[in-house]
Amino acid sequence: MKTEKQHRFSDRREIDTWLSDKTPLQIAEETARMEPAQQEAVFRHIDRDLSLDVFKQLNVAQQERMLEVTERDQAVFLLEELDPDDRARLFNELPVDVAARYLAKLSAEERRLTNQLLSYPKESAGRIMSPEFLALRPSMTVMEALDYIRKNGRKAETVHTLPVTDEQTRLIGLCELSDLVLGAPERQVSEIMHKCPHAVKPQTDQEEVARLLQAADLLALPVVDEDLLLLGIVTVDDAMDVLTLEESEDLARSGGAEPLGRPYFSVSDFRLAKSRVLWLVVLIVAATLTVQVLNMFESMLETVVSLALFIPLLIGTGGNAGAQSSTTIVRSMAVGDVQPSDFVRTLLREGRVGFLLGAMLGLLSYLPVSLYAGYALALVVSLTLVSICTLASVVGSMMPLAARFFGVDPAVASAPFVTTIVDATGLLVYFMIAKAILNL
Amino acid sequence: MKTEKQHRFSDRREIDTWLSDKTPLQIAEETARMEPAQQEAVFRHIDRDLSLDVFKQLNVAQQERMLEVTERDQAVFLLEELDPDDRARLFNELPVDVAARYLAKLSAEERRLTNQLLSYPKESAGRIMSPEFLALRPSMTVMEALDYIRKNGRKAETVHTLPVTDEQTRLIGLCELSDLVLGAPERQVSEIMHKCPHAVKPQTDQEEVARLLQAADLLALPVVDEDLLLLGIVTVDDAMDVLTLEESEDLARSGGAEPLGRPYFSVSDFRLAKSRVLWLVVLIVAATLTVQVLNMFESMLETVVSLALFIPLLIGTGGNAGAQSSTTIVRSMAVGDVQPSDFVRTLLREGRVGFLLGAMLGLLSYLPVSLYAGYALALVVSLTLVSICTLASVVGSMMPLAARFFGVDPAVASAPFVTTIVDATGLLVYFMIAKAILNL
Repeated sequence: MKTEKQHRFSDRREIDTWLSDKTPLQIAEETARMEPAQQEAVFRHIDRDLSLDVFKQLNVAQQERMLEVTERDQAVFLLEELDPDDRARLFNELPVDVAARYLAKLSAEERRLTNQLLSYPKESAGRIMSPEFLALRPSMTVMEALDYIRKNGRKAETVHTLPVTDEQTRLIGLCELSDLVLGAPERQVSEIMHKCPHAVKPQTDQEEVARLLQAADLLALPVVDEDLLLLGIVTVDDAMDVLTLEESEDLARSGGAEPLGRPYFSVSDFRLAKSRVLWLVVLIVAATLTVQVLNMFESMLETVVSLALFIPLLIGTGGNAGAQSSTTIVRSMAVGDVQPSDFVRTLLREGRVGFLLGAMLGLLSYLPVSLYAGYALALVVSLTLVSICTLASVVGSMMPLAARFFGVDPAVASAPFVTTIVDATGLLVYFMIAKAILNL
Repeated sequence: MKTEKQHRFSDRREIDTWLSDKTPLQIAEETARMEPAQQEAVFRHIDRDLSLDVFKQLNVAQQERMLEVTERDQAVFLLEELDPDDRARLFNELPVDVAARYLAKLSAEERRLTNQLLSYPKESAGRIMSPEFLALRPSMTVMEALDYIRKNGRKAETVHTLPVTDEQTRLIGLCELSDLVLGAPERQVSEIMHKCPHAVKPQTDQEEVARLLQAADLLALPVVDEDLLLLGIVTVDDAMDVLTLEESEDLARSGGAEPLGRPYFSVSDFRLAKSRVLWLVVLIVAATLTVQVLNMFESMLETVVSLALFIPLLIGTGGNAGAQSSTTIVRSMAVGDVQPSDFVRTLLREGRVGFLLGAMLGLLSYLPVSLYAGYALALVVSLTLVSICTLASVVGSMMPLAARFFGVDPAVASAPFVTTIVDATGLLVYFMIAKAILNL
């Protein structure tokens, strides 16, 4: 196994050497994998020229640490130069008193923009939009528009997509910069703009915004209020970050842990354990159901001890079938292929697929099990496999759909939860089938 | 539960009505959720004006179906107008004979471009790049460059990012369209371009390309060969699609199923079962290990039947701890936070965290279990929880790291696999602890 030396800097000179041949992005990525002490040593010694470029590439956890270790006026400079949406995301993560202290140091305009974004709900379009947009007027010619952009474009977060508004800054269209450059100079903006463009409300969930931007292949999406007043635009780079974040969250939850929200090595062991312990406790409490079920059938187990031999195999297979089903449905819901209104249709389908899978496994296992444990027990095991796979697939698809219906993230109701439910009900089925067939 | 009516069209008129108030994107999304027969009915009746816009928004599975049901010359028109990278992706999915037939109908130029892309490895940068780029020369002034773009830009897939090349079309820099529009008209391209831009090789894995594009906040990334000759550019919308696809795959595999690669309702029950059956069979064969272990300890089970009561709870908890650990590591590896060189460091860390979690669960459960099953058995259960959580976390982190080392997708070696391994070893530990403490 390749083992790369961990960076342990002994003096400033070593850090300078390490920094000298790296791009800001490389510095950001490599510090993310360092232990906290090493990371701070690097941040403390980055020179002022480089610091803003690096700061913009850092994730929120790293930015927080960099602000802690750099000098106060340098920290204020970094915050002032950040785009308002990135700043809002950072302030949201900072301890309240620290955020308030930095906020007070910002210029009046940047403070106003930051407060405005922070007034929208968490994970909404309002939080990730840029309020520093450049809007065109429909009556401008292409040449006038390009001139206007040349003179005023530097303040805007993006000029690749330009909203077109009326005098009340109501959104009436959208222009791509490429449409202007490719268009004849004397044509009017109103002729080349896209009318009725896609737009979202500031309250719209950020994942929905990102998926729309992706589906429609846009570089930016305008955010408007009830009266179509333009509030900001969400850019494609923010949308990509949102998708990656949401997908990290879905994956963490599908494994029964709370998302870390920061790089693996930048959190302490304790925080890692904290992100997992709650679900483990909930699941172990739910698992006491299996103890109850087995207790009910203890006398049967005493009579036929070999029934116990197949318990882990049967509930394990049920858990696997349930996990397959739930991850498929969670993902299909995330990308919009399955919707809560497809409830019945999805359940029927998973029931059919689960039965099919169970029947295949039951047939395959009958002969080996009967050689090992006799015909009667083999029949019990095969029939249990059919029932448990059907049950697991139905439960596995029902849970995420029900979660969404009750307003919970479907990914929370996924694999580990399904497994635990299927464990208890699967055991019940197993012993009931055994009772009937073995005449116990 | 809300149940929306499934679309069942009885005649053409109904389809026309349904189509009339929808954007191409909406048509693409809603047909993806229809049963195959309904979907075909829609595709068959979309008029020629709308068809190209809709076709571009469809996923590969839908595109394939639309080509099947539209007339031959219309199908050729749709393919001819598709961007080369999207066409290459589609051709890759089509049955070989169908792809060959359509390929023969394309114009010579489009056929050459398609063949060129298809010559690169699957899932590589070469497959998703656009070979129809517009390159600037460093000696052009900003005004000349904008003129050049205005005259020649329509053919290119994007003009938002413009590579700058020398006479041999070697890449020497990169210009954003916004840099040109915002720049003084008389300046030279060489003065405003980014020198030494990020670039990738055509063989680079598409996920790596997409993550670089995202991390560096770029709209496009040039693809160059060994001699820095420019071959094409990858655009941000393709990168977003790649990320979503890769994440769907990771999630499916973390649930122990092969990725479907197409919308849930567009595949048959049989195909759904097929995507799951192989892993279920592999896992059930692996689960026979648990039968062996229990068989070894059958006489102990006969003596103390209540040992069986805690089997599902213990191995379930081990499975959950292992799933938490493996999904965390799979994801951290996907985004680059954890690398194979972190092997030892990661294992030690997960071992510590697993021990911490096991100790907490062991302490919490001691009292309730001792009330239910006596002090001695409670001690066995608590000690097993500590061992099993430590073991599960180590195995859960080791498997994805080892998978990457052996060149396998880490997501394959995740939750269900870890669970099955932990089941068998956990049982072994349980009975060994029981043997020692209960003097059996």
